[in-house]
Amino acid sequence: MPYTGCMQRMSQLFTRTLKEVSADEVAANARLLVRGGFVHKVMAGVYAYLPLGLRVLKKIEGIIREEMNALGAQELLLTALQDPAPWKKTGRWSDEAIDIWFKTQSGDVVVGLANTHEEPLTRMLTHHIASYKDLPFSAYQFQTKFRNEPRAKSGLLRAREFMMKDLYSFSRTAQEHEAFYEKAKDAYRTIFDRVGIGESTYITYASGGTFSAFSHEFQTVCEAGEDIIYIEEERRVAVNKEVASDDVLRELGLKRENLREAKAIEVGNIFSLGTRFSEPLELLYADEKGDKRPVIMGSYGIGPGRVIGTAVELRHDERGIRWPAAIAPYDAHVIMLDSKEREAEDLIARLEQEGIDALYDDRLEKQAGEKFADADLIGIPWRIVVSKRTVEKGMVEIKQRISKDSSLIEVQNVKIKMQNDNIKF
Amino acid sequence: MPYTGCMQRMSQLFTRTLKEVSADEVAANARLLVRGGFVHKVMAGVYAYLPLGLRVLKKIEGIIREEMNALGAQELLLTALQDPAPWKKTGRWSDEAIDIWFKTQSGDVVVGLANTHEEPLTRMLTHHIASYKDLPFSAYQFQTKFRNEPRAKSGLLRAREFMMKDLYSFSRTAQEHEAFYEKAKDAYRTIFDRVGIGESTYITYASGGTFSAFSHEFQTVCEAGEDIIYIEEERRVAVNKEVASDDVLRELGLKRENLREAKAIEVGNIFSLGTRFSEPLELLYADEKGDKRPVIMGSYGIGPGRVIGTAVELRHDERGIRWPAAIAPYDAHVIMLDSKEREAEDLIARLEQEGIDALYDDRLEKQAGEKFADADLIGIPWRIVVSKRTVEKGMVEIKQRISKDSSLIEVQNVKIKMQNDNIKF
Repeated sequence: MPYTGCMQRMSQLFTRTLKEVSADEVAANARLLVRGGFVHKVMAGVYAYLPLGLRVLKKIEGIIREEMNALGAQELLLTALQDPAPWKKTGRWSDEAIDIWFKTQSGDVVVGLANTHEEPLTRMLTHHIASYKDLPFSAYQFQTKFRNEPRAKSGLLRAREFMMKDLYSFSRTAQEHEAFYEKAKDAYRTIFDRVGIGESTYITYASGGTFSAFSHEFQTVCEAGEDIIYIEEERRVAVNKEVASDDVLRELGLKRENLREAKAIEVGNIFSLGTRFSEPLELLYADEKGDKRPVIMGSYGIGPGRVIGTAVELRHDERGIRWPAAIAPYDAHVIMLDSKEREAEDLIARLEQEGIDALYDDRLEKQAGEKFADADLIGIPWRIVVSKRTVEKGMVEIKQRISKDSSLIEVQNVKIKMQNDNIKF
Repeated sequence: MPYTGCMQRMSQLFTRTLKEVSADEVAANARLLVRGGFVHKVMAGVYAYLPLGLRVLKKIEGIIREEMNALGAQELLLTALQDPAPWKKTGRWSDEAIDIWFKTQSGDVVVGLANTHEEPLTRMLTHHIASYKDLPFSAYQFQTKFRNEPRAKSGLLRAREFMMKDLYSFSRTAQEHEAFYEKAKDAYRTIFDRVGIGESTYITYASGGTFSAFSHEFQTVCEAGEDIIYIEEERRVAVNKEVASDDVLRELGLKRENLREAKAIEVGNIFSLGTRFSEPLELLYADEKGDKRPVIMGSYGIGPGRVIGTAVELRHDERGIRWPAAIAPYDAHVIMLDSKEREAEDLIARLEQEGIDALYDDRLEKQAGEKFADADLIGIPWRIVVSKRTVEKGMVEIKQRISKDSSLIEVQNVKIKMQNDNIKF
């Protein structure tokens, strides 16, 4: 059965675009996302997702989930409330060790709100993993993280409550871990390509902790970024300023004179954890000889909300957002001008039958100028106008958000045009 | 393109069934769900979802989402962290007013973890709703709630952290509200029918608050329930003991001698809120004459985790769970006996091609008895055995979880048999 598109009438959508944003909202991503009706700011660093924003979030989540499943990772869902016990064993319970804990009282005990999930997952797995036959495997979740960030002025780039996709790998040997780590790295590249920020995103050597020389960050070059990286354009790698000593550059085969400094946003990171968590929490497996060994772990994070903020920082102009096609809330923004005549409604119904997901501006009381301005602000890649003039010809007027050129085409050609004329930002 | 099933090999699944559950886990639902590898208990009232449990949760979520969208409700996602301001305005911030708050420190201020979302949603909508033209509408979310329950010994029936579907309606008049309320009531009936607990679930008159005589609870009759209801079987309605005075029974046209007392689990509730929240939070709309009026609200909740717990309480025997088909983690539990011969693997690949989602017990090291016991514990509605004996005939042996009778059939008839022989518990 052919897919029938979803057509959301703006007269029914309960959100509206806003002219004003509170002055304390300084980040471009947050200002545009609030004005467009994608998110609502509850407090500093705490954002609710409105219907348009939730559609973007779910598209990103869908892309990430596909790539996680392709890795063979199994989805689960851990909890926000944290028993202190495993965190005490790894030394990460105190506010000195982790300075962004939110804690709360549950009966007589103080419990935490998870800022990450190595401890509870590692402890839980002691109930399920016993033998080398149970390994290797990987597990991931989309789960809300809480981080009591002292500064939260960057909109969706640094939130106090945010959804995170976190993947964890469990291997028997360093070699087995490395093989998965490389596959996860490739999956991350694919994800950033698919969501539309791959061209600006560099795999970046960063500090590695105790168990490996480096971790890898995925850094998207952007003026709003809080990190400084040094980019080697030819190899498409970078080094985080924090670790970019001469010794490190030599080790990586990079020459300082070939490096370009840039501000960047960390959109993902992958870590080799070694036995940092499995040893204190006793996640052990019996090898072929029956000897108990600690499991070798890795962790791999992406914040879908941060990806949204980054995409908006990269892709906007003075009029509004310019969504990458893969994560836009809808494929097309359909505008009805003049009047809701029968023929015009017929044309729009046919767009739906063609399988186009559209936000449909059917509002009678709005002027054309306001409708065009809203379309530019909301930033859906294609704009389709149906007016008396186009209806007379049995056609629609189609235009990309990023282009000034529009063309009149027949409804049955819309989908093909949208597929063939790839959006290039 | 025909749907190809998803085949999860148990040799790859990282969870295992457990022989033991800690003695402090007293509720049948939690004991079975933990033993089957559906959930993991982190603390009292705090459960993580493992891959099998997450599949059940997502199936329930999918059914609810379809029915919410059919109502025309728009999905959004509010936050856990709560600014105290709107809660102070409605008088629900203090621990005396709401005795199950979790609160935490964010910088200098105390913030809450949401136990419900009337306040933040009502406040947020003051940015989007201004005129009678913006109404009516409804919005819903699947969002984690936090309730610091003093007793949390009922497994998934009363959790401290749990996902909730909460729907809110916004109307101009009492009449408009009532019309939506009745539609929502019907949607709830449909949901409980679809998830497989409809037959035991009664719409129940309960206390209504200030703005309506009654609210409606959906109560599932079950020995594990904490509520007492009086059921009028013929009309399929019930009254919560809390409000079942003689006066109330007379008002509802019920006769005490026709009522049967039963323990029940509240799996959903719907409330008329009137202007309880819109007045203090100033969610007003201008009517046709330009007069400002408070919006009339309703709220409608279902806890998918509680639905899971209830389904398990209702549908289990001494050997394990008996999932309703619509929310089972997989359609079939495929067991390979004897050996992984080429012909057997071919038969199983053909099940996958037939579009059957299956948990596939391919474990070589396990004995037949253990495999059968695991299948009974996990409780998937259909069990399909492939053995030397069946392979010789080019067939599989199929049996319902609830039945003792098995039959040999050809692979191409499996799907039809599963569709036609409806599971009756």
